Amino acid sequence: MTEAFTPASRDQDQKLRERADRVIPGGMYGHLSARRLPAQYPQFYARVQGSRAWDVDGREFVDMMCSFGPMILGYQHEKVEQAAAAQREKGDTQPGPGACMVELAELLIERVDHADWAMFAKNGSDATRLCLSAARSTTGRRNVVAAETSYHGWAGWSNKLADGQAGRADPETFRYRYNDLDSVTAAVAQANAAKVAAIFVSPFRHDAGHDQEPVDPEFAKGVRALCDEIGAALVMDEVRGGFRLHHGGSWEPLGVKPDLSAWSKAIANGYPLGAALGSDRYREGIQQVFATGSFWYQAVPMAAAVATIHALKDEDAITKMEATGTRLRAGIDKQAEQYSVDVSQTGPVQIPNLSFAGDVEFEKAMTFCGEAAANGAILHPRHNWFLSSAHTDADIDHVLEATDAAFRAVRAAFGSN
Amino acid sequence: MTEAFTPASRDQDQKLRERADRVIPGGMYGHLSARRLPAQYPQFYARVQGSRAWDVDGREFVDMMCSFGPMILGYQHEKVEQAAAAQREKGDTQPGPGACMVELAELLIERVDHADWAMFAKNGSDATRLCLSAARSTTGRRNVVAAETSYHGWAGWSNKLADGQAGRADPETFRYRYNDLDSVTAAVAQANAAKVAAIFVSPFRHDAGHDQEPVDPEFAKGVRALCDEIGAALVMDEVRGGFRLHHGGSWEPLGVKPDLSAWSKAIANGYPLGAALGSDRYREGIQQVFATGSFWYQAVPMAAAVATIHALKDEDAITKMEATGTRLRAGIDKQAEQYSVDVSQTGPVQIPNLSFAGDVEFEKAMTFCGEAAANGAILHPRHNWFLSSAHTDADIDHVLEATDAAFRAVRAAFGSN
Repeated sequence: MTEAFTPASRDQDQKLRERADRVIPGGMYGHLSARRLPAQYPQFYARVQGSRAWDVDGREFVDMMCSFGPMILGYQHEKVEQAAAAQREKGDTQPGPGACMVELAELLIERVDHADWAMFAKNGSDATRLCLSAARSTTGRRNVVAAETSYHGWAGWSNKLADGQAGRADPETFRYRYNDLDSVTAAVAQANAAKVAAIFVSPFRHDAGHDQEPVDPEFAKGVRALCDEIGAALVMDEVRGGFRLHHGGSWEPLGVKPDLSAWSKAIANGYPLGAALGSDRYREGIQQVFATGSFWYQAVPMAAAVATIHALKDEDAITKMEATGTRLRAGIDKQAEQYSVDVSQTGPVQIPNLSFAGDVEFEKAMTFCGEAAANGAILHPRHNWFLSSAHTDADIDHVLEATDAAFRAVRAAFGSN
Repeated sequence: MTEAFTPASRDQDQKLRERADRVIPGGMYGHLSARRLPAQYPQFYARVQGSRAWDVDGREFVDMMCSFGPMILGYQHEKVEQAAAAQREKGDTQPGPGACMVELAELLIERVDHADWAMFAKNGSDATRLCLSAARSTTGRRNVVAAETSYHGWAGWSNKLADGQAGRADPETFRYRYNDLDSVTAAVAQANAAKVAAIFVSPFRHDAGHDQEPVDPEFAKGVRALCDEIGAALVMDEVRGGFRLHHGGSWEPLGVKPDLSAWSKAIANGYPLGAALGSDRYREGIQQVFATGSFWYQAVPMAAAVATIHALKDEDAITKMEATGTRLRAGIDKQAEQYSVDVSQTGPVQIPNLSFAGDVEFEKAMTFCGEAAANGAILHPRHNWFLSSAHTDADIDHVLEATDAAFRAVRAAFGSN
């Protein structure tokens, strides 16, 4: 399916990288930068379709990153593209919103138990920041409590690298350890309970560079009770997990409702959209906030989101992702055993994470993912992967051929275990 | 061209407003909210084409707000849409950027004198924040100096309403008065010159709710000299003015170069994109910043931006906007005289602002714009308007018919002057 990896086959990517080095800092930035990926990865892509991506040199890949989450139904999904095209013919960025904004808000509120209202923006960082704004404005407090290695977007309140060398941990943000309720209580005490506006959680622990951890239901209930006790908002960051675990909020099966939730990534199958959802208690407060963006009210992404959310249910997408995710996990486990390489596979099968024993510097993971890329599978050495409902059993089997070669390479370079 | 304004003709808009009231805080938020506009404005739009917009009840308007700036070549501009469609067929949100990202960075650097590099994001707020990050990381300092009623996006550093009732002026932001160099010097002293990372400017004074003011060239040169003296970055916020004044940076005719500049709105004729441009001194610093977004690397808006920037020059768009903007300004001046209503028209003709003498509460402006809307022209009572190159003399003449009715209404309600 793919040609063997040779430097000669990388000509176009290499030329673009050289041009990019001159006009883009570091040649590329952010989470799609190939700088910290194995050399076998391309930086520039030519096209995408279904579960597949082609780089600028024509190499074909099964994409197990789904553009870090947005692609959930497959690239160029027919119904989503039809809805987007129909709206585009009428208008996208307009002097005001289209009717689809109301339709989308109604649909989200119908699907997500805790939500009484919705606001839309462009990215996950906008959505988490809007939730913080709603919590602050409603409670009249400013401090925020969040898990210590969690990512809630690039904004300074949760990202100490937002200002690079002049960056710092935000003095209004206090940290706890995921699944450790005592550490939340301690962080709240440190922040002063009467000054805490919000406690942020994610559906499960999915910090980059760490094994994933399912939420302990007692932790979820305990954080909810603590928020009620101190009058703070429980904010669920669904940006990464949302739409892949449940058709509603990710903690609904636990019976735990957040007050506010942030959504983005998969919400419109690749169209740019973020959403903050909230309960009635936070409606008046968020109306005191001034937040907006030139492109927040684009109609096309909203029409695409309506189509995406319907298609997820109509096509039973989560069940499909669970099935192919289970196939991938079982296949990798089997290969790990065959090659006697000790691995951990963690997190929901539809948002899988693979790590290697003792691989503190990610050297094994880099070797593994580099060889997988050379064999036609896009994975990631330090970040969870994403399934989509476009991934077929045949796609997974192709990925498993690539991971077989990848395990062989790890075994050759590092020995067993 | 439009039917007379009657409540009965507002049926669909009214129904959508009622639905929105239930599921969107306040029924709508941000700069496209019709809540603070005259009752004659619609909230929801059905379609847009060229210089025209139609609301959900089928009323047709000449749009003099251009969606607050993004529409610069006219809605559904053929060349931009062709470029967007060609890229969309290949891919939009992908596992990495497309070649068009490099092409766009090269084009911007060719057009904008001060720029050696470019980074892309989604909105103006992202772009201004990236400039601040570049300034902070490079200088190792955190304080920022900005004009007192300027708007640089919804982020907390410049927007004290970002947290509503728990909002506050950022303690690291210090304020000056536009065109008053002494006040900049004072703000720098207050901030401590050795701690100032950046001084923000806009191409001209365009604060909402105020008459606009051209920049005093001595002010521009003075701020540049002050930045050099104290080692701070001069950051130009081109989000609102960019692409309408010049094909490069807005202060290039003055011979004053900023170190960093923020762009968005008109950059891709309505497709969602923000850009931060910088000089070489800031390249290393911005590489220490972690900033990213799920949709920052979408290829379609970048392809649309390349087409937009070329079309602006190929179609001599700025000259066209100056001509139609001059026609509008002259027509309104003539009407004001005819009706003996004292007005101020300020700012560049392609980004015009109209205010009424003694109209502190904007009551005359509300009457004026309400009547103009009822007669088929979208204006704004408290914010500057925007020309596009799609506006024809016939469009302007239609707007002038609407403003004639609007002046008559102001005269009837408030008398002369």
